[in-house]
Amino acid sequence: MTGMATQADMTYQAVEGGITAPAGFKAAGIACGIKASGKLDLSLLVSDTNASAAGVFTTNLAKAAPVLLSRDHLTQSGGRGRAVVINSGCANACTGADGRDHARVMAARTAEAVKCDQTAVLVASTGVIGVKLPIDNVVRGIADAASQLSPTSGAAAALAIMTTDPFPKEAAIEASAAGRTFRVGGMAKGSGMIEPLMATMLGVVTTDAAVAPALLQRALKAAVDETFNAITVDGECSTNDCVFALANGASGVELTERDWPLLVGSLKAACEPLAIGIVRGGEGATKLITIRVTGAASDEDARRTARAIGNSPLVKTAVHGGDPNWGRLIAVAGRSGAAFTLERAVVKIGPITLFADGTPYDERAPEAAEYLQGKEIDLEVDLGTGGQGRSHMWTCDLSAEYVRINADYRT
Amino acid sequence: MTGMATQADMTYQAVEGGITAPAGFKAAGIACGIKASGKLDLSLLVSDTNASAAGVFTTNLAKAAPVLLSRDHLTQSGGRGRAVVINSGCANACTGADGRDHARVMAARTAEAVKCDQTAVLVASTGVIGVKLPIDNVVRGIADAASQLSPTSGAAAALAIMTTDPFPKEAAIEASAAGRTFRVGGMAKGSGMIEPLMATMLGVVTTDAAVAPALLQRALKAAVDETFNAITVDGECSTNDCVFALANGASGVELTERDWPLLVGSLKAACEPLAIGIVRGGEGATKLITIRVTGAASDEDARRTARAIGNSPLVKTAVHGGDPNWGRLIAVAGRSGAAFTLERAVVKIGPITLFADGTPYDERAPEAAEYLQGKEIDLEVDLGTGGQGRSHMWTCDLSAEYVRINADYRT
Repeated sequence: MTGMATQADMTYQAVEGGITAPAGFKAAGIACGIKASGKLDLSLLVSDTNASAAGVFTTNLAKAAPVLLSRDHLTQSGGRGRAVVINSGCANACTGADGRDHARVMAARTAEAVKCDQTAVLVASTGVIGVKLPIDNVVRGIADAASQLSPTSGAAAALAIMTTDPFPKEAAIEASAAGRTFRVGGMAKGSGMIEPLMATMLGVVTTDAAVAPALLQRALKAAVDETFNAITVDGECSTNDCVFALANGASGVELTERDWPLLVGSLKAACEPLAIGIVRGGEGATKLITIRVTGAASDEDARRTARAIGNSPLVKTAVHGGDPNWGRLIAVAGRSGAAFTLERAVVKIGPITLFADGTPYDERAPEAAEYLQGKEIDLEVDLGTGGQGRSHMWTCDLSAEYVRINADYRT
Repeated sequence: MTGMATQADMTYQAVEGGITAPAGFKAAGIACGIKASGKLDLSLLVSDTNASAAGVFTTNLAKAAPVLLSRDHLTQSGGRGRAVVINSGCANACTGADGRDHARVMAARTAEAVKCDQTAVLVASTGVIGVKLPIDNVVRGIADAASQLSPTSGAAAALAIMTTDPFPKEAAIEASAAGRTFRVGGMAKGSGMIEPLMATMLGVVTTDAAVAPALLQRALKAAVDETFNAITVDGECSTNDCVFALANGASGVELTERDWPLLVGSLKAACEPLAIGIVRGGEGATKLITIRVTGAASDEDARRTARAIGNSPLVKTAVHGGDPNWGRLIAVAGRSGAAFTLERAVVKIGPITLFADGTPYDERAPEAAEYLQGKEIDLEVDLGTGGQGRSHMWTCDLSAEYVRINADYRT
């Protein structure tokens, strides 16, 4: 098919600039006084022109006001957007009618400042649940941020969405395929998957490729499933989680249905380092754990097992303590709900096979314990069904520090 | 209906003696050298006469050899049993053909010692996964235990099934209804729901009522669902979990289908303190948490939410730290998969309502923080659907000590 890029054609090159790496985007990150510390707490992203817009939202039924508003805006605008405004330090969740008003005010003031329809503004909040936004500060902050918009301020915007994150998370790539070049940029915040008093996983993705709204929505969902939805810190999903994408076409490259592998591939290339960054910055995390599940009856079964392993406190404490405890992986696989055949199952810690053909290889435990001293840990379980289903998941270890952070947060 | 006990008739009185409190049971707990420490590690329970037998087994697909054998024995015997033999210190799981042989040897030697069919023996093991049983020690131990059987040794039997449990768990009750009196006794071990190197939740229930095998099986399942299956320490279920019941009729009281409330009620009365004991003795536990979920669309929805709360590291760390973090309860309820209506949801910590009618009552937070200093914590969530579904769950807090126990276990 003419013009269709093959896998071999595509290259993704990391570049600087985060959400402002693609052409035609400006951003700002400012402090408006939501955080008592005086740290940056309001982030604004604006496309120079109207863009296609997409969003993936938390499945939590206790959705925060900005989540509901942004979802409505995407529907009303038919997937067109100009700006994303995000505050940190207050989640505007469980805040009733006032909360809904405040989210609308954030959209309205942003629309005035950048001269666009209100429905072209996407809004997100992250921070304390059940506390009202200091809306006057936010309104002043939006005007302030609009006056500071710059095509090199992606880094400030990434700082301004942080809560307990130990470091900001941004990424950008330049994608090339068959002589066409465009960029994808992104930023994210995480920490715990949810910390309702300092909450939420947020992601924002920008691209200067032109992509029709419906296609962008499907591609964002596909990329999120393999990246942001393939991580877990503590198995929670928050009232405020969302990932937004804006595609403004400023590169002159248009991506259509037949460019699906390139479109999804480029979005994934930008989202994957953000997702892994969230895990690395997980509360109390000292190790990045990559879980691979193979030999499953279906990809869905593989995903179920990978998620169960990624959320198992016993697996995560064993990795934390450097204990090559393959029995915990067998036990979690067996209870995950996926089809599982013990006699043909295989468990590997790094390159070391510790269980296969129904037999433990405990003489290799010292070698595996040595491997677990590292900071990047691979765990692999073959479910032994003979099926082709496979999946992956990233998580972090569970440390006493996680308990300390979450037990003592308000004290 | 003549002879049918009403709720008001039934009384359950706690008595001493554990599994040997009911008439016609003898037990022993001895040390046979499986545990290097020399502590008790083999437990034997024998009914003076053939009894009805029932079992509830782990749903984990990686079932240990003794679990598979005991399940087969119950089928082959048509629910008749005479003895239960349990070793601690070695789970006999992931041990291949040798493991299956070893479980059979345990049943055969026990059958010889007490002169019954092999299929009348139920076998369980708990301890390290993937390590072979020192079967010669076990065989000597069975002979030794058979020579020490006594109608007052329930306590020794309860000690001999412990692994990392901080204390033994036994309970017994005398049930009276309409002039009929019988006893139910029990013992259990737990700790983590699973610790594959020192594994498993086990329970044994005895009664001197006469109960037909099929009825006993159904009643045991019903009682377990409300007790052992309503607890969680860390969300894991092991390769070796099981609960057995023997009913020998030595009291002369026969319970039939029409005595269902009395039968299930008496089993629950013995199992509930055992289940709560497991939670109290959970690894690193400092508080007992009772979770009640009401206002659900169905009991199943309520159970789903109660379980999600009971397994939430964020809820459990908040209780540990004395943080009245109602937002975490809302967020977990919202993601639990149950129908949920935020505007009508209610969250209570102890007697204190912190969220209702879509509104936080943060001025009550200091009072709730004070309440959380206690050792027995009630959490209640009304899902706001207007439905009658309800459920409960017991769990413990998540402490840094849990991480320490599970991270450093083999080092």
